[in-house]
Amino acid sequence: MLSKEEVLRILESVIIAGDQASLVSKNLVKEVLPKDGAVNIVIADTGLTADDKESLKGTIRDAINNNTGFEKLDIIFDIIFEETRAADINRVKNVITVMSGKGGVGKSLVSGLLAVALRRKGHEVGILDADIVGPSIPRMFGLSGQLRGFGKAIVPLESKIGIEVVSMNLLLENECDPVIWRGPIISGAIKQFWEDALWGSLDDLIVDLPPGTTDASLTVMQSLPITGVIIVTTPQDLVEMIVKKAVNMVKEMNKPIIGIIENMSYLLLPGTDEKVEIFGRSRVEEVAREIGVPLLGRLPIDPEIARHCDKGTIELYNSEILQALEESLIQAMATNKFE
Amino acid sequence: MLSKEEVLRILESVIIAGDQASLVSKNLVKEVLPKDGAVNIVIADTGLTADDKESLKGTIRDAINNNTGFEKLDIIFDIIFEETRAADINRVKNVITVMSGKGGVGKSLVSGLLAVALRRKGHEVGILDADIVGPSIPRMFGLSGQLRGFGKAIVPLESKIGIEVVSMNLLLENECDPVIWRGPIISGAIKQFWEDALWGSLDDLIVDLPPGTTDASLTVMQSLPITGVIIVTTPQDLVEMIVKKAVNMVKEMNKPIIGIIENMSYLLLPGTDEKVEIFGRSRVEEVAREIGVPLLGRLPIDPEIARHCDKGTIELYNSEILQALEESLIQAMATNKFE
Repeated sequence: MLSKEEVLRILESVIIAGDQASLVSKNLVKEVLPKDGAVNIVIADTGLTADDKESLKGTIRDAINNNTGFEKLDIIFDIIFEETRAADINRVKNVITVMSGKGGVGKSLVSGLLAVALRRKGHEVGILDADIVGPSIPRMFGLSGQLRGFGKAIVPLESKIGIEVVSMNLLLENECDPVIWRGPIISGAIKQFWEDALWGSLDDLIVDLPPGTTDASLTVMQSLPITGVIIVTTPQDLVEMIVKKAVNMVKEMNKPIIGIIENMSYLLLPGTDEKVEIFGRSRVEEVAREIGVPLLGRLPIDPEIARHCDKGTIELYNSEILQALEESLIQAMATNKFE
Repeated sequence: MLSKEEVLRILESVIIAGDQASLVSKNLVKEVLPKDGAVNIVIADTGLTADDKESLKGTIRDAINNNTGFEKLDIIFDIIFEETRAADINRVKNVITVMSGKGGVGKSLVSGLLAVALRRKGHEVGILDADIVGPSIPRMFGLSGQLRGFGKAIVPLESKIGIEVVSMNLLLENECDPVIWRGPIISGAIKQFWEDALWGSLDDLIVDLPPGTTDASLTVMQSLPITGVIIVTTPQDLVEMIVKKAVNMVKEMNKPIIGIIENMSYLLLPGTDEKVEIFGRSRVEEVAREIGVPLLGRLPIDPEIARHCDKGTIELYNSEILQALEESLIQAMATNKFE
């Protein structure tokens, strides 16, 4: 007889897409029931066709046969499919939304860096790119190609260090194709990214919002179980005003703010240690006090970061700044009992 | 008898809001008909109440009485109101849309600088701030306070050098109040800014779009008689990709592109003439060629501009860069027979 653990270990090798998305990692194995010398395996059916099911059954049988010795070849197992939505088998601990209100302040950069920082700490991390019409995440991580499906569910693409990504740009034939959609369709897409993507078990899902306080932000606030919001700003007064609109929106919707991050705080002059405050003196400490949230960090304009974003190698970026951000984030989440 | 010209000259002094918005400048005087020794004055009624009309009649009578000699006091004139929508009396020659797809690349800055450049050339210029949830224009021009109404029409606020501005932030009690609206309401607001604002006679109306290719951009493309679109980009590859989405949207919607402007091309090191390409080498010439549109100019990151934007004194900004932009814009518009 095969034990439940042995069966699960074998099913870990049944890959449904990419290199690492297996039946087990995506929580698609609902039950393994050893019973009367036989084993019942219950697989989540996220809208699989009859053909899909037959083919999957074959793969599972082969995996089990290949992984068991002669003496076990006589085991009897049944593969049962049970209709399930991805949302019902996903286990996401923290949903962290990165927001600003203003465009171009570096929300996606912060989302990417946070994901990298948390991943380096050993967390299971995903990024839901909620910027449907202007998605930046795939390029930053060097991800291209199209997302695969598992039945009607979407299988996230995995980055080099194992961050799960779902983004509109991974559904387009050409990354420059415009997505000319009105609000309700945008909202529908974001809900699908949450409910129909196979996130599996994650410690942290980072949600990268587009600018503004309209459909995308509203949908994320209303339809996702937000743990907390991280606000991104830059040193310009004009930006501060629009960022405050976002903060006021979050407060009106009674969501907790984890903290604020200032991007483009200063320019690190290439090749030197010199810092130039090109957008004027930072006021972020006052702003953080005013809003009543911790300041998580100040990121410089670092041409090195821009290069990594363009080359898709953000995961290789390493700096004291990132380490400091990582620590303050973990601390803020612990303080707020988000962990 | 008063001539038509004399009556119009007098009505120019009848101010409906602010310092300069008069019955005449807003095209609210529909007709002046001298007839049988009397004068019929037809005023556009944009949803005025009975009280509004009585009070306006009194003001007009006073203005005429104060401006005519004793010998003309016996003239008979009738003030007639005729229901009219602002859209029907506005005369706007060019509707120039500033677009990017990506946030934070400086669309509002470009919109503001273009308006200033055209105004300095002697044009009558307006700015329709179509970024309902993240409006930057009022702050940049140092405009605050609430827009006044004339009946149901909105009277734009005038900047120091006479640029007419309509923006959501001029309708809010507090500029940091968030506008938490879904797409259809956003679209409705933009249409109102176009149809219900008393733009009067303008040479150029600059429409400052929010990031993205969703509701606001769609509504402007579909509901406004666009003369042409100006595309704003920055030197990052990541930005270029999203800007191309905007370009492809404009092409799909068969609107002409006037040209492309690169913002943040390089940093002007404060106090020196040194240029640092902090976001990497510019590719905008290739991009312009690829899209098949003229390159209108490259704007630096100039801490001086950031200061002016924060202080609301963008109209005081003066530089060779702005003059060059002005010339290339006028030239592009002439070449494309937009003028």
